[in-house]
Amino acid sequence: MAHNTRVTADSNAPPVTRILADFVATHPAQGWDAGVEKEAHRTLLNWVGCAVGAARHPTVEAALAAVLEFSPSAQASILGRGERVDIGSAALLNGITSHTFDFDDTHLKTIIHPAGPVASAALALAEHVDATGRQLVDAVVLGIDVSCRVGNMIYPDHYDRGWHITGSTGMLGAAAACARLLSLGADKTAMALGIAASQPIGIREQFGSMTKPFHPGGAARAGLMSALMAKHGYTASMRAIEAQRGLAQTYSTKCDWNEITDGLGQRFEIAFNSYKPFACGIVIHPSIDGCVQLRAGHRLRADEIERVELKVHSLVLELTGKTAPRTGLEAKFSVYHACAAGLVFGQAGEAEFSDGVVARADVIALRDRIKAAVDDAIDEAAADVTVICKDGRRLHVFVEHAIGSVERPMTDADLQRKFHGLVDPVLGAARAERLIGQCATLSGAADVRALTASARPIPRA
Amino acid sequence: MAHNTRVTADSNAPPVTRILADFVATHPAQGWDAGVEKEAHRTLLNWVGCAVGAARHPTVEAALAAVLEFSPSAQASILGRGERVDIGSAALLNGITSHTFDFDDTHLKTIIHPAGPVASAALALAEHVDATGRQLVDAVVLGIDVSCRVGNMIYPDHYDRGWHITGSTGMLGAAAACARLLSLGADKTAMALGIAASQPIGIREQFGSMTKPFHPGGAARAGLMSALMAKHGYTASMRAIEAQRGLAQTYSTKCDWNEITDGLGQRFEIAFNSYKPFACGIVIHPSIDGCVQLRAGHRLRADEIERVELKVHSLVLELTGKTAPRTGLEAKFSVYHACAAGLVFGQAGEAEFSDGVVARADVIALRDRIKAAVDDAIDEAAADVTVICKDGRRLHVFVEHAIGSVERPMTDADLQRKFHGLVDPVLGAARAERLIGQCATLSGAADVRALTASARPIPRA
Repeated sequence: MAHNTRVTADSNAPPVTRILADFVATHPAQGWDAGVEKEAHRTLLNWVGCAVGAARHPTVEAALAAVLEFSPSAQASILGRGERVDIGSAALLNGITSHTFDFDDTHLKTIIHPAGPVASAALALAEHVDATGRQLVDAVVLGIDVSCRVGNMIYPDHYDRGWHITGSTGMLGAAAACARLLSLGADKTAMALGIAASQPIGIREQFGSMTKPFHPGGAARAGLMSALMAKHGYTASMRAIEAQRGLAQTYSTKCDWNEITDGLGQRFEIAFNSYKPFACGIVIHPSIDGCVQLRAGHRLRADEIERVELKVHSLVLELTGKTAPRTGLEAKFSVYHACAAGLVFGQAGEAEFSDGVVARADVIALRDRIKAAVDDAIDEAAADVTVICKDGRRLHVFVEHAIGSVERPMTDADLQRKFHGLVDPVLGAARAERLIGQCATLSGAADVRALTASARPIPRA
Repeated sequence: MAHNTRVTADSNAPPVTRILADFVATHPAQGWDAGVEKEAHRTLLNWVGCAVGAARHPTVEAALAAVLEFSPSAQASILGRGERVDIGSAALLNGITSHTFDFDDTHLKTIIHPAGPVASAALALAEHVDATGRQLVDAVVLGIDVSCRVGNMIYPDHYDRGWHITGSTGMLGAAAACARLLSLGADKTAMALGIAASQPIGIREQFGSMTKPFHPGGAARAGLMSALMAKHGYTASMRAIEAQRGLAQTYSTKCDWNEITDGLGQRFEIAFNSYKPFACGIVIHPSIDGCVQLRAGHRLRADEIERVELKVHSLVLELTGKTAPRTGLEAKFSVYHACAAGLVFGQAGEAEFSDGVVARADVIALRDRIKAAVDDAIDEAAADVTVICKDGRRLHVFVEHAIGSVERPMTDADLQRKFHGLVDPVLGAARAERLIGQCATLSGAADVRALTASARPIPRA
């Protein structure tokens, strides 16, 4: 049998496993600027909203039913639900819920959704060990830095091979966050990263199935377990990431070590996190944004609209050209429905992609009067939107970068509106408002119990 | 950012996920010849022995301590221990124990250790759902066939990249075995395989650390969880193994689909399983075997021996040339200690690689009179052994294939002797003998409770 002895990883690679472990174990609490600190709170708010919003989805019901086969102990919360499960299962389930709507955060440099694996593991553990809000925020910032730096190191080759990079780097971020919460110290943190390095989760072929959101959930659980094993003296290679038969070579061809070390402790990857304003593929966001802008700027009502003319990049119609979607899921691939929703409701959150909204007569009537033309002079990130009113007015906007992009981040008010759209149907508006406040002030909280309590639905009488 | 759009997997690949699922779900109970049935029982005996033998190893203590952080419910047994844990944790821990001594079974075509992931998951579930012995044996044969066929499909490229192939195919075998035990039917079995396909475990850099035996344990747990999720309606891609961004392409370059389909249901990979007679690297097995043969054939006592002359392939000294090992672990890399043990004790099991035996004066005295010369005319699988006695006799044997190889399989008596060596120190000889009988008659057992009860130590008064 001919063996291939190709070695991709440089045998003189810097000791990045150890470097990351030292960083996670020793970086000072809140050792970053106010912008990073603020983004951490926004990341958590967005993550809680996505998790609570999907808490009753069939994906989550199926995963929870499997977890209950283990008769788990009641250690930690599932956001948006009343059941309590062991911390490993809570990490798994919150990771699943937060990615179920595909509405969570995105580190655009790598397409990693960083909060799912990291925050899901960290919150479950924080609840169990009674960590402070400060400790949780620190763990999330550092854990996301680990995931995203490893992602930068191996992207795009790793992704192009077929890995769902969120789950195949997220176990490292989750392990780092949990090691930090457990105050493991540098040596055991390196072991936690090493154990996690053997457990990448996720192939892209799963996109479109329930296994896609399993990936961040599985990574959260794997990272948490790795930290607990390291705590009790379990060992791994101290060079698990960089060695010749380690993570980098086994899961990728590209290994840019500088991405681990450059500006470590100075530049934080969470600062580049972004949040989706609309619950659908990123390619139709500029068109929806244009519709929402025109509606707001001109106080447009749907019944004033004669027709809509879109000019978009060809990719938009290739991916989202469904003219007559019948279900909410199909509607996520219809630029027509999405723009109609933007004009009728002024938003396009998960609620606007429900089966009921897709079947509404006023939405269908408007949708059928939207025409889209391909113009490849227009960038993928842009859209040209014209609304022709029944009274003859032509209202026009050109969107160069959609809301939610790095160039035009969602404001705090935008994020809070998104949060209400997700959380109000599950917990009610008052609870949602309380959660928004608790997320904003989390770093000063004595523990995380108030937050998890607010995310628990009031039992029906 | 330049993306690599290379596609390794054939877009016209046969639907191997579906083919394997149909096979696992519908193949008749005991649908194979007596040789396969017998090998299944030998595989289980060897696996139980390895698991019980290592049950008190520090690796297992650390892993169990981490598991206990979840306050698991008492659903299933850890072989060789008194604690009971949830079925997922039992699968994990039995997978760890069975590989801790590196003394478990080997599918030589792929270097997969197949029982660890598959039997560990299957026994935990069988205990919980009260399966019959017949159902357990069927699940193990079919699960091992799935792991090893997928291994054949992607070996050696997959292994050469850095994957520890036992854990990176074992999750599929474990999922298959558990799907069979749960009678999921073909559709849900395909989902179980699909969910598992996202969870490969293990990089070779971990060799020498506790994370190596974690790999079969983690794969066992992942496969069990995948089957439970599928049972409750969780979905995955129906083409998770063969699709363009599926398992085969993401984890390998070589994808030989014929290895899945050729003789499926006719040829069973468990028939090619082998068992290590000696608790050390395979490269010194021929030399030890020669020493054991000379000792038995001439009723040699160590004090009769003047010196020993070995002729071996250069690889033997490259990998195992330590002349003065100080610990049991070092002694596993010493052809000198290993041969001395073979001559003194007539065997070289885990006990003969203990720190105490390595430090014994008689062992050291003999070890220092063993000389090894490189002769590359001798194959890696062979050894030339000459013992020169104090009375002038020259005793010689040339070992072409060591005991334990496919050419010279261990006999049932050999396996039972190995089993006693592993199990007697933990459970006593009487319990060990009872377990040997229970493994031999497992396919006729009404349930697996008697077996797991026998593998539980009697509590100290």
